Amino acid sequence: MTRDETRARDAADPLAEFRKGFVIADPELTYLDGNSLGRLPAAASLRVREVVDAEWGEGLISSWNAGWMDLPARIAGKTAGLLGAAPEEVALADSTSVNLFKLALAALRAAPPDRADLVTDDLNFPSDHYILRSALDLAGRGGELKTVRSPDGISVPIETLAAAIDARTALVSLSHTAFKSAYVYDMAAVNEIAHRRAVKVLWDLSHSAGALPVDLDGSGADLAVGCTYKYLNGGPGAPAFLYVRSELQEQFENPIRGWFGHADPFAFDLGYQPGAGIGRFLTGTPPILSVAAIEPGVDLLLEAGMDRVREKSVAQTEYLIRLWQQDLQPLGFRLNSPREAERRGSHVSLAHPEGYRINRALIEQLRVIPDFRLPDNIRFGVCPLYTTFEEIHRAAEACRRVVTERLYERYSPERQGVT
Amino acid sequence: MTRDETRARDAADPLAEFRKGFVIADPELTYLDGNSLGRLPAAASLRVREVVDAEWGEGLISSWNAGWMDLPARIAGKTAGLLGAAPEEVALADSTSVNLFKLALAALRAAPPDRADLVTDDLNFPSDHYILRSALDLAGRGGELKTVRSPDGISVPIETLAAAIDARTALVSLSHTAFKSAYVYDMAAVNEIAHRRAVKVLWDLSHSAGALPVDLDGSGADLAVGCTYKYLNGGPGAPAFLYVRSELQEQFENPIRGWFGHADPFAFDLGYQPGAGIGRFLTGTPPILSVAAIEPGVDLLLEAGMDRVREKSVAQTEYLIRLWQQDLQPLGFRLNSPREAERRGSHVSLAHPEGYRINRALIEQLRVIPDFRLPDNIRFGVCPLYTTFEEIHRAAEACRRVVTERLYERYSPERQGVT
Repeated sequence: MTRDETRARDAADPLAEFRKGFVIADPELTYLDGNSLGRLPAAASLRVREVVDAEWGEGLISSWNAGWMDLPARIAGKTAGLLGAAPEEVALADSTSVNLFKLALAALRAAPPDRADLVTDDLNFPSDHYILRSALDLAGRGGELKTVRSPDGISVPIETLAAAIDARTALVSLSHTAFKSAYVYDMAAVNEIAHRRAVKVLWDLSHSAGALPVDLDGSGADLAVGCTYKYLNGGPGAPAFLYVRSELQEQFENPIRGWFGHADPFAFDLGYQPGAGIGRFLTGTPPILSVAAIEPGVDLLLEAGMDRVREKSVAQTEYLIRLWQQDLQPLGFRLNSPREAERRGSHVSLAHPEGYRINRALIEQLRVIPDFRLPDNIRFGVCPLYTTFEEIHRAAEACRRVVTERLYERYSPERQGVT
Repeated sequence: MTRDETRARDAADPLAEFRKGFVIADPELTYLDGNSLGRLPAAASLRVREVVDAEWGEGLISSWNAGWMDLPARIAGKTAGLLGAAPEEVALADSTSVNLFKLALAALRAAPPDRADLVTDDLNFPSDHYILRSALDLAGRGGELKTVRSPDGISVPIETLAAAIDARTALVSLSHTAFKSAYVYDMAAVNEIAHRRAVKVLWDLSHSAGALPVDLDGSGADLAVGCTYKYLNGGPGAPAFLYVRSELQEQFENPIRGWFGHADPFAFDLGYQPGAGIGRFLTGTPPILSVAAIEPGVDLLLEAGMDRVREKSVAQTEYLIRLWQQDLQPLGFRLNSPREAERRGSHVSLAHPEGYRINRALIEQLRVIPDFRLPDNIRFGVCPLYTTFEEIHRAAEACRRVVTERLYERYSPERQGVT
């Protein structure tokens, strides 16, 4: 497709209307980092004003009874609809890290006494590694974190993973979609392998939620956590979600028991009585402004439908890979994501020995915004509700220019800041 | 003072200008629940719009480098100025519950092996009891939560507390200001008693921060946590703060190690390297909208100065107590707060056998907003930056009317909702 052809394609896009639901302050900016921070839904801006000015400013404390108490559960219930879960299986609270800690530790403590180890892979978030080790420390059984190595840095063969799960394994915890390569595990297959060995699985859905259809209930999932500020467009640092399969909710104990997890928080009873169902995994008072901002993005995804979102996502990542093949591979860019769409999430990683400097040049000179992940990896995130084919064309063209015109050379290879 | 005299007093109030810094949507509403949810600072409304529309909507991911990364530390540093702490001793993160969990567990794990017990009192938040028990469970040393009983439900004599600290005590954790009675511990005296027995103290400052001068460094405090949505006016569920004395920061390990506590989060290293200083007690990504809303309220308190705030607070709670003595004691109201100002925080609790129904009548018929705490306790919170003497007069007069005109009788004694 030429640039003009991408415009025609965008005009014919059945999801084109959804882009209007987002604030696009500068149409010349090519934003392919929605997998790190999703764009602002226009309705979220209005909603936050309402929460601040009307609910906090005017309603004051009465707003807790008038809606805030139920708000996280209502948004969690909607989020469940994107994850193949029942509303009463999902809660919204804390950060992904804290939720991962709570569920990992709960699962480790509930495992049979002879099972203490935790299995993960080296594609998982480093942060998840830190949290999983924190949970192992506190489980107090001397369990180890066994990290399955990816042979190519892109994916882990399912047999390799299966071989790592043994009679000492208490829990398997993986990112469903790998943050760097976008590799997507076959969730049902992994659950089945683990369950056959009587092991539970805890998924991190941070790069899956809102990016592709997830079927927690249908795939037999046990536990999951995930982030709302990426493909769900919930806003910077917005609180995270957690999922506990219905049948498991009573078997697990929240290791951080706070008043919001109590059966009757306002009884102010000195003894703790866990709430019914998923509510028992809550802890403290939720940050309402950041919670409220999540809902509009979730609503947009529900309205679009995850199947349509996925269809466009695959078309867009495939398109980017074709452009890579044609224009960028000859310039030293390496595809660092799975080639087959079925095993790939909604971003594409291109590695280059000059990745860091190329990323800076893309951002600072050509106004194309991907992000960089060490050592050499540039991620291009596709968010079908607002990403256009034209943007993908622009991004690939910009990569080509940065290398052929050596635009990256003005930057020091020394890393600065977040991206 | 008559109603007119209170108006004259308010007009002469040296802090009167600060009330204009808050949104007062309805001047006829008597809001005495700022100890539960502080009012909206006008600047917070503008600041949140800026964060949402300009920083998230337009700045997108670049806003992390342009300010969000440093935002929690900047606000924490300002908050430190209200607490008698150095900026590098305070962090802003998570909920009060999660922070209490982190510091309590860190302290329990760092205690000598023969010390496992935790001492608290029955004036402390029930939620703190749940969290402290959670931490004891995970410390894995079989330690117990020893709860010192208040003889009158209002205060705990310091000798009673001292007697509970023994050779098995690993940590003392108390609310500095009790959420129900407003009793204020002598922080320096408690720290000294505990330190003499080689025990650390973890303070919950939720009802102290912004309510009265706190001198963490000067009183030799070890650890503290607290809430920002009460007297700091940070907004519903706004993230909490934690304090770790400089000399102790390297001695304690954060039990929930996430990427924001890492020395270099964006190195994405699978091994955890704790950050320097207070940063190591962070965990996940902070909820930026709710974080940003905290700053304007803190700024107003810094500008007013905690000494002036305290002076007015004492004058206002004394005034309410005089009105109670004169008009309400004869109607069966009991003072459930310390009589001496020095040991009293910034709210006054009045108990009444019909407390629950009186509270509802105050709110629903007379538009006076205190809050209710079981079994019979009505709390009247004074926030000197916006509370007027006229409001206190109105509140006492309303209490008198509700009882003499039996306005409470239309309500069922069955508790509903939050207040």
